[in-house]
Amino acid sequence: MKNTFGSSVSLTLFGESHGAAIGAVIDGIAPGIKIDEDFIRSQLSLRRPVGLISTPRVEPDEFVIESGVFEGKTTGTPICILIPNVNTKSEDYSEIRSKARPGHADYTAYEKYHGFEDYRGGGHFSGRLTAAVVAAGAVALSALKGKGINIGTHIARLAGIADRGFKDYESDIKKLSEMQFAVFDTAAAEKMKEEIIAAKNVGDSVGGVLETAVTGLPAGVGEPWFDSVESLLSHALFSVPAVKGVEFGGGFSLCNMRGSQANDPLRTENGKIFTLTNNNGGINGGITNGMPVVFRCAVKPTSTIHISQQTVDFINMENVDFLAGGRHDPCIVHRARIVVDSITALTLCDILSARFGTDWLAE
Amino acid sequence: MKNTFGSSVSLTLFGESHGAAIGAVIDGIAPGIKIDEDFIRSQLSLRRPVGLISTPRVEPDEFVIESGVFEGKTTGTPICILIPNVNTKSEDYSEIRSKARPGHADYTAYEKYHGFEDYRGGGHFSGRLTAAVVAAGAVALSALKGKGINIGTHIARLAGIADRGFKDYESDIKKLSEMQFAVFDTAAAEKMKEEIIAAKNVGDSVGGVLETAVTGLPAGVGEPWFDSVESLLSHALFSVPAVKGVEFGGGFSLCNMRGSQANDPLRTENGKIFTLTNNNGGINGGITNGMPVVFRCAVKPTSTIHISQQTVDFINMENVDFLAGGRHDPCIVHRARIVVDSITALTLCDILSARFGTDWLAE
Amino acid sequence: MKNTFGSSVSLTLFGESHGAAIGAVIDGIAPGIKIDEDFIRSQLSLRRPVGLISTPRVEPDEFVIESGVFEGKTTGTPICILIPNVNTKSEDYSEIRSKARPGHADYTAYEKYHGFEDYRGGGHFSGRLTAAVVAAGAVALSALKGKGINIGTHIARLAGIADRGFKDYESDIKKLSEMQFAVFDTAAAEKMKEEIIAAKNVGDSVGGVLETAVTGLPAGVGEPWFDSVESLLSHALFSVPAVKGVEFGGGFSLCNMRGSQANDPLRTENGKIFTLTNNNGGINGGITNGMPVVFRCAVKPTSTIHISQQTVDFINMENVDFLAGGRHDPCIVHRARIVVDSITALTLCDILSARFGTDWLAE
Amino acid sequence: MKNTFGSSVSLTLFGESHGAAIGAVIDGIAPGIKIDEDFIRSQLSLRRPVGLISTPRVEPDEFVIESGVFEGKTTGTPICILIPNVNTKSEDYSEIRSKARPGHADYTAYEKYHGFEDYRGGGHFSGRLTAAVVAAGAVALSALKGKGINIGTHIARLAGIADRGFKDYESDIKKLSEMQFAVFDTAAAEKMKEEIIAAKNVGDSVGGVLETAVTGLPAGVGEPWFDSVESLLSHALFSVPAVKGVEFGGGFSLCNMRGSQANDPLRTENGKIFTLTNNNGGINGGITNGMPVVFRCAVKPTSTIHISQQTVDFINMENVDFLAGGRHDPCIVHRARIVVDSITALTLCDILSARFGTDWLAE
Repeated sequence: MKNTFGSSVSLTLFGESHGAAIGAVIDGIAPGIKIDEDFIRSQLSLRRPVGLISTPRVEPDEFVIESGVFEGKTTGTPICILIPNVNTKSEDYSEIRSKARPGHADYTAYEKYHGFEDYRGGGHFSGRLTAAVVAAGAVALSALKGKGINIGTHIARLAGIADRGFKDYESDIKKLSEMQFAVFDTAAAEKMKEEIIAAKNVGDSVGGVLETAVTGLPAGVGEPWFDSVESLLSHALFSVPAVKGVEFGGGFSLCNMRGSQANDPLRTENGKIFTLTNNNGGINGGITNGMPVVFRCAVKPTSTIHISQQTVDFINMENVDFLAGGRHDPCIVHRARIVVDSITALTLCDILSARFGTDWLAE
Repeated sequence: MKNTFGSSVSLTLFGESHGAAIGAVIDGIAPGIKIDEDFIRSQLSLRRPVGLISTPRVEPDEFVIESGVFEGKTTGTPICILIPNVNTKSEDYSEIRSKARPGHADYTAYEKYHGFEDYRGGGHFSGRLTAAVVAAGAVALSALKGKGINIGTHIARLAGIADRGFKDYESDIKKLSEMQFAVFDTAAAEKMKEEIIAAKNVGDSVGGVLETAVTGLPAGVGEPWFDSVESLLSHALFSVPAVKGVEFGGGFSLCNMRGSQANDPLRTENGKIFTLTNNNGGINGGITNGMPVVFRCAVKPTSTIHISQQTVDFINMENVDFLAGGRHDPCIVHRARIVVDSITALTLCDILSARFGTDWLAE
Repeated sequence: MKNTFGSSVSLTLFGESHGAAIGAVIDGIAPGIKIDEDFIRSQLSLRRPVGLISTPRVEPDEFVIESGVFEGKTTGTPICILIPNVNTKSEDYSEIRSKARPGHADYTAYEKYHGFEDYRGGGHFSGRLTAAVVAAGAVALSALKGKGINIGTHIARLAGIADRGFKDYESDIKKLSEMQFAVFDTAAAEKMKEEIIAAKNVGDSVGGVLETAVTGLPAGVGEPWFDSVESLLSHALFSVPAVKGVEFGGGFSLCNMRGSQANDPLRTENGKIFTLTNNNGGINGGITNGMPVVFRCAVKPTSTIHISQQTVDFINMENVDFLAGGRHDPCIVHRARIVVDSITALTLCDILSARFGTDWLAE
Repeated sequence: MKNTFGSSVSLTLFGESHGAAIGAVIDGIAPGIKIDEDFIRSQLSLRRPVGLISTPRVEPDEFVIESGVFEGKTTGTPICILIPNVNTKSEDYSEIRSKARPGHADYTAYEKYHGFEDYRGGGHFSGRLTAAVVAAGAVALSALKGKGINIGTHIARLAGIADRGFKDYESDIKKLSEMQFAVFDTAAAEKMKEEIIAAKNVGDSVGGVLETAVTGLPAGVGEPWFDSVESLLSHALFSVPAVKGVEFGGGFSLCNMRGSQANDPLRTENGKIFTLTNNNGGINGGITNGMPVVFRCAVKPTSTIHISQQTVDFINMENVDFLAGGRHDPCIVHRARIVVDSITALTLCDILSARFGTDWLAE
């Protein structure tokens, strides 16, 4: 469905980086969920660039809820959230129209859209659209919170610097909700920022790994084979620009374990079932087992750098050098974490509404 | 869609490990594609257990094409392939009905299906169903081959032993098609087998990483955001039992690179555009760039082991020990690679038919 | 999705009239629903041709449940029902390969499948596939019955002869379940049969109108705009071969009413809300209002007749005359009613499971 | 998908009658299609109420294209069209919140959305949203026109008065594009208007039948069983408020014909195949045969009338009388025809793009 994802609860994205507006339509969210515009605003602020470690292009991200909310609550019908583009400088882009920026979608978009694409600032492929994901995700996050389901993402690794892992999931997630730079270990956080600035100073960029935990999901959610929780989440996560890897639980490190280490032993206590380790990331056979769902996303270094690169002028078909102008991020990992939370929340609302019906989120 | 994936070309799976049959329905494949039953058979044989490194349960995998093929060619209407189960021993499983096998879907299936699930041998969650994926995938692989698109998967890592990576994609893929144990480096292959047998000898199991390359895909294929090639492939790949991670191109290793290293410089020669490295795995912005599409899947060690494990009797809600009987695999990585090829081929047929129309695969 | 319909509960059809088998996969039906093979058999017998008013080709319709049923109940995973073709006489068809039978899909299939279609007996377009719909529908009908939802279809008109309409819905639906020829008014039934035989005697065929009622649906089911109950039911009903019109409630006759006549006045009594008339067929704004859902399908006269007709040899591109041989029905209206019940039941299972969750049908 | 329809080309609707705005997102339309804002405006004007025969509420229908258009052409990415609501008078509705207006979705929406729905003026169920369908449809109509595919709808019957049928399809469709009141027979048109005014004068309303023809569709388009042209078109058409019946070709009148009359004889001339009659409405087996696709929609009389009606206060659960205030249409048939054209165009763009690929419409 191209720019629409989800069936019970769906998200439709539209817009271009330098067009009139970007936006999202969320459909199928239960009626009666309180909409807190301040929460949407604060989520958007977590995605916005900050200080020296981000791009100087700062969009105000003023949003308008065009539909689907009445007297402060969801109506159950589609919610369209529009975010007008304000701070656009198209002139930065027009002269480089036919030069493929390495790592970007310029050339692939040209092949797909035959030159009719809005190429300014990445157009429809721009990370700018994730602002609409975040606004929509805020609604989903509120709905999940009402059911005791919480989501948090931290920077597990950035430019080689590692954060500590999740310890107490619930309190860790609470901490993350109050952090602008989502790293538990403050010393690591400082080092990460230094790495970002070091890269920035030479016109370069860095990447990282985001780790996400979801608590409060009931066991027995998800569907076998193609609607597995892993399939649906990874589908959504790989739609986030710059995500090039997704792993659940132990993920790639499971390959070095034996079954006796990788299998999570089960125990029961006080009528609850849990596992002693969580190498399966809370999911067996694609279905939740009641443990926290844990996954990691690889975020590649920002493609735009201020260093000369070899590329191709794909209209004139010739080899050229390319040095990016414009305003850009030396790192987007810290900004992407709220996008990951948001898309995860939307996907889980879809999965849960399919499982328990269209009203469940508001019950 | 639970057990159906794809829209232009779709795959529907059904069956249980110890039921009457398993099977698949492929819909939307172009009319006029030659069906080579010997090729289907040889693909199934690549998935079948072999020798000391696999389970002694060997199903003959005799398949019946019930529909959609006429005079040796696809008709364009749904192809149902049925694989009757023959070598089932249900008695192995009945006594352990309520004990969750660690790493398996027993408990999650129970929570989802409330005890009505066919629990014998993993039921619908059994890796046995991948035989149907392989049979269906053979049709997709043939169709792609006819368009110059080839797919090959090797074992990049197994129990800590690494194979060499892809060098010449086309000839490497050709080599893989002739290997039962898909490892380029024969010394590494021997060591991997030794590791499998070492684990087996102590009742344990091992996992690994599969690396896949697809050549011949035109540039400009895929859709932005939710139908990106990465989103659709990962969706399909995470449906394969035991896959816990998927990464494209550089994947998680990109996190340690700077943008200047991760970006793939573009060059043009003789009217063709290519990149000097392939850290983006042939995909920018979710759309193919004409380079080989390259990805890796983490395959966890087989969950069934012959070592006593802690678990829960989820019906009587008590802690118990569990020691698996039955016939099982000390490793499924070598068998899974043909499943990965197959599901990749089916997904690409879907993507390409959506892009170029329902007849394109046969033109 | 071509041959798959529904999202929460889906039906996938496969097979050709003269191939090895036809069949259906039902996915998403709640676990724990009792499967009564005798009921499936009796439903199939209602679809089968009978006596002088039908084709002499009688398939035994022996079905095999290949998956999704365990210990007599649905497991919640896909149910594949296979019906092998037995009584096929392909030689009847081979000589007329390139002559388009008027009213049939021969020429359109040729244009779509470029000659690779299995043309024997209508191939995949054959009414024969409705046997699989009926077998699958029996499962859905059982599930709905368990929730107090009943469906019945009678022949409202056939060759100009009208039956009486529904009076007491519940008892009328019960009566229909016991009728082979579903007409309330026995005198009208006799006249209809005479018309069928009269047409048959001159090699011709007749059509009719089927009227369906569904009782027991709760109010508030369906979704606005594109998943309206009318949209989804009509989508499914127009997939039944020979259906060329669908109308809900007053349908086309509403066009001759004024609003003051067409609007259904509402009343409440004993805490229940109902309407005094049912011109909207139990649906307002695409959503159920708690009244019986009532609709009618126009079924065109059987296309195959034993009268010479003008047609085209579409391979040799010449005008020819065509006189059908083979075994055929002078009327399919009486056989189609159970197909309408079945596809209606499957669609309602989908709508209800989407609304109330995947377990609701079995609760 | 609730408020999204179509897969290759999809339409997503949002908005409420008295909310901030209504709008549509069209996704999947080929890149490079010229956008003529004047044409969109003129299509919207055909939907707008006119003179004595319509409601005095006249919305200016100023639209904003927020995305997906660049330098006057489609980019291939989602087009969001927003139509702000201006002329809203919410006070008309607040006092009648809990009284179900007969024929409307007030009560069904209340059951579905539990009272959280925006009830003002029908909210999300309002015919007002068809303005967004018309704006989106204008893009689809332009795309089809570029491929030689034309669509026209006339009022076949209104309050018992019949128009003549289509004669020369191409020139008739051209005529319709220039008519505000789409009736071929000018004498019939006058009588229809008199009937509308007569109904209006007593506070009542009238309904009618719309007949649509589509020319220029190639043969071989559509998919068997569930993506048949009839299934997809009827799905979309029944989403249009007030449509209660859909029939193709001869439709319900086929029930009174014999097969020898209903079958369309085929002929060939100059390498083209055609039928002498068009009782199948250009569709056999769900697939186009190259003849004009012809169908009719039953449009019920406007539900809002200025006559006292029996109804229920569904919050207080009591029987009450209801007399509508506000501004309303005595007839919407003449306004609905452009909605039918629009939704038909969007559905055909979906079907054709699925068949021939995402670029076909612009080639």
